[in-house]
Amino acid sequence: MKIAPPDPGLLSLNTATVRERWNLREMIEGCARHGIRGISPWRDKLAGLGAKEAAKLIRDNGLTVTGLCRGGMFPAADRKGRQSALDDNLRAIEDAAILGARCLVLVVGGLPAGSKDLAGAREMVRDGTGETLERARSAGVALAIEPLHPMYCADRACVNTLAQALDLCDELDSGASGDLGVAVDVYHVWWDPQLQQGIGRAGDKRLLAFHICDWLVPTTDLLNDRGMMGDGVIDLPRIRSWMTAAGYRGFHEVEIFSARNWWKRDPDDVLGVIQRRHQECC
Amino acid sequence: MKIAPPDPGLLSLNTATVRERWNLREMIEGCARHGIRGISPWRDKLAGLGAKEAAKLIRDNGLTVTGLCRGGMFPAADRKGRQSALDDNLRAIEDAAILGARCLVLVVGGLPAGSKDLAGAREMVRDGTGETLERARSAGVALAIEPLHPMYCADRACVNTLAQALDLCDELDSGASGDLGVAVDVYHVWWDPQLQQGIGRAGDKRLLAFHICDWLVPTTDLLNDRGMMGDGVIDLPRIRSWMTAAGYRGFHEVEIFSARNWWKRDPDDVLGVIQRRHQECC
Repeated sequence: MKIAPPDPGLLSLNTATVRERWNLREMIEGCARHGIRGISPWRDKLAGLGAKEAAKLIRDNGLTVTGLCRGGMFPAADRKGRQSALDDNLRAIEDAAILGARCLVLVVGGLPAGSKDLAGAREMVRDGTGETLERARSAGVALAIEPLHPMYCADRACVNTLAQALDLCDELDSGASGDLGVAVDVYHVWWDPQLQQGIGRAGDKRLLAFHICDWLVPTTDLLNDRGMMGDGVIDLPRIRSWMTAAGYRGFHEVEIFSARNWWKRDPDDVLGVIQRRHQECC
Repeated sequence: MKIAPPDPGLLSLNTATVRERWNLREMIEGCARHGIRGISPWRDKLAGLGAKEAAKLIRDNGLTVTGLCRGGMFPAADRKGRQSALDDNLRAIEDAAILGARCLVLVVGGLPAGSKDLAGAREMVRDGTGETLERARSAGVALAIEPLHPMYCADRACVNTLAQALDLCDELDSGASGDLGVAVDVYHVWWDPQLQQGIGRAGDKRLLAFHICDWLVPTTDLLNDRGMMGDGVIDLPRIRSWMTAAGYRGFHEVEIFSARNWWKRDPDDVLGVIQRRHQECC
């Protein structure tokens, strides 16, 4: 299957990709310098600059905020922990609203410490997402549930397939209002035999973000060994074609956690590689 | 949910658990000495003793061979590679027949080197499993497809959920003859929101093996950091109750790849821990 290269104007930088060497100001200015039109900040980086200042700088540089990473982490061992998680999500919604972010990405959380009750954790995720959704709606912020790779089920997110995320969307937002959807990150879902079907089922109303990188063989670390597009085994053009066929017209956000490679490099070089690989491999 | 401890007579040792310190003879004699009634050899260990000699020793010690690990690895870049894989599966079937193994476990293989064609690899798996099934039937050996954790999709097995494995069974053995089924390894499937449903769908005809260990938090290595039952987050009694409800009456086979811990210990101590944890945590 030969697929035409993507529109370079749809490239977005997730700040995790250059998080070790640049602060948010440098990231925004770096994107502008390279002609990258989208940015998706993590909240640790946002905290350094402040949401209002960041929003102004991003606006002044003509960038689109393709997402804010992240809310979620709903399950907790007790009521106080769950309330604390909800409070944190409300702060994230405020920041997402100030930034005009296209979505707030939800990494929903795993098992509470000491728990083996996976079904219970998933109920907490449903309840927490539902409560957060009310507030997000009022603030005009869309929530994007990000199914995470099953290897993160215990400690990061117990929503692990696109189908599971979409079942949650059906339950909490049956009308597909656009207020609740999914973030499709190829790293987490590329292996799923139901992926194409899930993307089609989501449709444009629920496809809120598209994250790209690659799966390396071998992968030497569960967390921080993601690959640059083209260096691994994910058929990125094919997955993009499924997103497009389903009506997705949004950005392609590059999120690479790479302690042994890309985090060590000059971020300006990394941005250049990202732009080339986006054209050649995505 | 309080569940009664399992029958200690259903414990089985997968040889991977003590592979660094014992040869197959020592494993067989170790099981007999500890009163463990089942054993599941890997072929590397079998090669050291020979299938006939191993079969005699196992029989003389009154053990049941709960599985032979492993066949599979079907996808290959060319016809010659695929034929070579089939030939290897035929040898595995012969060994499984000599051992009287309850099943030959299939780790189906991942992407051929250099390939990103996951759908194509899955077709090779279907075709290879189908061809192998013909020969296994003649030899009276049941084949157990083992869905592997999605983190092994690229390099070990592109069958990654129980539902996917059962779809293959439906396609290749629609009558549920008992000749083709699945090996349910908790390490690979514990995260799956459709697990209970999949076990029920499989039923006793297709539930050919049950492998146990635990998922550690954190997990520090993708391959060799599995936990002893009770040391991780998997709700083993619950999953066992689903197996039982579906009609499974077979062994509970302990398969622990653990370079940093259990492989370093005295295998006699490891077997003692396994027996206790089987009673206390499974």
